[in-house]
Amino acid sequence: MNYRLIARYLRFVLQLQAVFLLPMLAYSVTQGEHGAGKGFLITLVIVVILSLLLRLVKFDPEKTMYIKDGFVMVAICWIAVSVMGAFPYWISGDIPFFLDALFESVSGFTTTGATILTNVEGLSSGLLLWRGFSHWIGGMGVLVFLLALVPALSGGERSFNVMKAESTGPAPGKLVPKLRQSAKLLYIIYLVLTLILVLFLLAGGMPLLDSVVNAMSTAGTGGFSARNISIEAYNSAYLEMVIAVFLIIFGISFNMYYFLVARNFSAVYKNEELRVYLGIILVSTILVAVNLLGSVCDNAADALRYAFFQVSSTITTTCLSSTNYDLWPTFSRFALITLTFIGASAGSTGGGIKVSRIIILFKESRRILFRMVHPRSVETVKMDGKTLDKTVVHSVSAYLALLMMILVVSTFVVAWDGYDLESTFTAVSSCLNNNGPGLGLAGPAGNFSSFSPLSKVVLSLNMLIGRLEIYPVLLMFSPRTWKRI
Amino acid sequence: MNYRLIARYLRFVLQLQAVFLLPMLAYSVTQGEHGAGKGFLITLVIVVILSLLLRLVKFDPEKTMYIKDGFVMVAICWIAVSVMGAFPYWISGDIPFFLDALFESVSGFTTTGATILTNVEGLSSGLLLWRGFSHWIGGMGVLVFLLALVPALSGGERSFNVMKAESTGPAPGKLVPKLRQSAKLLYIIYLVLTLILVLFLLAGGMPLLDSVVNAMSTAGTGGFSARNISIEAYNSAYLEMVIAVFLIIFGISFNMYYFLVARNFSAVYKNEELRVYLGIILVSTILVAVNLLGSVCDNAADALRYAFFQVSSTITTTCLSSTNYDLWPTFSRFALITLTFIGASAGSTGGGIKVSRIIILFKESRRILFRMVHPRSVETVKMDGKTLDKTVVHSVSAYLALLMMILVVSTFVVAWDGYDLESTFTAVSSCLNNNGPGLGLAGPAGNFSSFSPLSKVVLSLNMLIGRLEIYPVLLMFSPRTWKRI
Repeated sequence: MNYRLIARYLRFVLQLQAVFLLPMLAYSVTQGEHGAGKGFLITLVIVVILSLLLRLVKFDPEKTMYIKDGFVMVAICWIAVSVMGAFPYWISGDIPFFLDALFESVSGFTTTGATILTNVEGLSSGLLLWRGFSHWIGGMGVLVFLLALVPALSGGERSFNVMKAESTGPAPGKLVPKLRQSAKLLYIIYLVLTLILVLFLLAGGMPLLDSVVNAMSTAGTGGFSARNISIEAYNSAYLEMVIAVFLIIFGISFNMYYFLVARNFSAVYKNEELRVYLGIILVSTILVAVNLLGSVCDNAADALRYAFFQVSSTITTTCLSSTNYDLWPTFSRFALITLTFIGASAGSTGGGIKVSRIIILFKESRRILFRMVHPRSVETVKMDGKTLDKTVVHSVSAYLALLMMILVVSTFVVAWDGYDLESTFTAVSSCLNNNGPGLGLAGPAGNFSSFSPLSKVVLSLNMLIGRLEIYPVLLMFSPRTWKRI
Repeated sequence: MNYRLIARYLRFVLQLQAVFLLPMLAYSVTQGEHGAGKGFLITLVIVVILSLLLRLVKFDPEKTMYIKDGFVMVAICWIAVSVMGAFPYWISGDIPFFLDALFESVSGFTTTGATILTNVEGLSSGLLLWRGFSHWIGGMGVLVFLLALVPALSGGERSFNVMKAESTGPAPGKLVPKLRQSAKLLYIIYLVLTLILVLFLLAGGMPLLDSVVNAMSTAGTGGFSARNISIEAYNSAYLEMVIAVFLIIFGISFNMYYFLVARNFSAVYKNEELRVYLGIILVSTILVAVNLLGSVCDNAADALRYAFFQVSSTITTTCLSSTNYDLWPTFSRFALITLTFIGASAGSTGGGIKVSRIIILFKESRRILFRMVHPRSVETVKMDGKTLDKTVVHSVSAYLALLMMILVVSTFVVAWDGYDLESTFTAVSSCLNNNGPGLGLAGPAGNFSSFSPLSKVVLSLNMLIGRLEIYPVLLMFSPRTWKRI
């Protein structure tokens, strides 16, 4: 294990976090929020001291960075960012227990959006902003941001492993030959889209703080809102439609926006994942709307409004809500659970299994089925017209199997708390898919505060496993990884 | 498609069913059950006429039998046996709707054990016997029985495809060089074990009819009992322990019994699937018992008794019950759902994914994880010391993906009925895994009668898909299969 390299990245990550904490501190001071101000200040001091201590570890640029070093480093950096990010909540006194603060922090950075807060509106506005910001930076990736900023880090194969470990989906494409440019471009597109969304929300009469928080939550497909009852609080069809459309936009692979900027329209038009993703949203919206029309809605317009918002909010694993969908009929609720598992597109800020993985699983299953009757066939799995590497196909299958195993084991731990099966299972699946609220106790009208400390730790781990797509976290815990070669 | 071949097998299967119907008819007559007698008689006449009609289709022994022919033939034969098997219930008047009778029949032959009966004890004893017998013959396989009986069918590669399609697990081993001997041996072991169980049950004071029905249900790991509240009706720890132990025995690969007969003890001792299977039962029993002790049970003996019975009944996907486990705490109920998915051993009469597939999935995931950090490693997946063929490994991965897809799509259809999510999901998963009862409405205290006709059709298809392990049924519905080459 290349410890010096891990120390180096960790130092940069902590410095970056210090940079993020400064404006939060300034904002809290201007708002006269002493608790939050104290929280940000003390955290800032701790982070700076830690990063200075890490400076003492000499970096050896000659030592090779193996894939496992990259993966484990990413996992460790994410844990560090989450732990440090929990301090403001805790020190401010707004969240009295550290484990709860940690849960909230992990939930923020992993863009899960599950909360332990029983009263979101009671939180200091500075902390609301910090909560929203953690979604924003976590969505695109903390280390990707670092790569964009620090030239020394973004050299060659080394940084590609980092990007591979942090970005979503089975096979991240290199957008442009130079990784640093690629990371910069991603963040510029991301920032511009977020600012446009803020303007749209302000135009709909949403207060400034709410607009910024909800925009960051939407962009990172997180789910933390500024209000207890989420987007339902504004009761505005305009705002719901704006957020729903932008959610869909942030759930699309950012490669597509690069193609648009580069005027390569055919690549966007022909993209299989994009088509399937939009197709699933269309079909789900119609089916859920029909189901709602027969039960909780009187007219088609309302049914479509609620269905469209919740479908786009759930497939992107954001789970902002415009109504208490836990009261919906079984078909619609099962549809939401399914969408959580499907998830958004690879290379987006969304979570879940990812549409491209689902496509690959489907095609591979069809190929195996075909080969059963034509054993000598040499059919391969293709995506966007290109044959996929077998390694990619098999690691997608393994991904599904691992996800199921982690889901089952985690559910067993949380089940020991004794809450009903639906709440228990959806709490775990929602955290693992970075969706946020589940159903029942963990639903839009509930929160995660009543789970046991052990469950909170397991759910926090699930969020990290989901955000980093299993492998970095599993490798970190595997004894094989730490063996000297 | 080799239609003549399908017609030939279908004729033999119907003749075999006629042979099965005869003793049922005789028994009903001696019991003076006119309704059941009429049911068996008319069904017998129909079956005989159909098989005579099929005689008109000339068989062409020169025409090749492709794998797909074998698979589709098995699916068609199973559907024919189930449809014909439904007639006695319907014609007797005991089950007034044909769709309900069909559901009960499919549930019997596929050894699922899900019932639409609201009062099992109201059924004629002849039909109770027929219901139990369908478990027994379905457990080991209708076509395997045919192969054992009809020398003309059991020649070479042809019949191996049939056996492959009907037996459980990823890769059925050829027990002995000659397939017919292998099929015979299987059925002899199966019959002897069943008879021993009947004696054990009689010794515990269980009435004769009940002993025979429950023994056949246990042997086929089905789940139909002679009583409304299943094994709980006898309220006997002795009977529960006997059944639990025999369930575990019938959930072991029958290859093990062949090895025992051949005095190859080391093959049994070293068998990985057997060890994991017994290990899961041991660990699950302890965990469930601890969970029960803290909630529904006062003393350790009771907790162990209920836990052991239900764990062995659920991992073998039998789901006879000794108590209403739907009232158990969440941890235990989730354990039962998980055991249903894991299932029994390959080559046993049990359903579910099968322990060997779970082992392969686990090892393959570990291999993929290892290869991520050591891209040049050439590690393979081994089982019982032998390297597994890549084709087997990949088709197991595809199996899991297909199962999940079928589970989700089926749940959507059944969800439209509007019952709660837990009942809906467990009804589907229980049918797909050939387990039988689920939780809630579909639980041990409930039944499947209230589901809509469409749901009953989908659930019946799920049972067939589960019993024939996906591929035969999917191939039957695939347009590609029916294309002329």
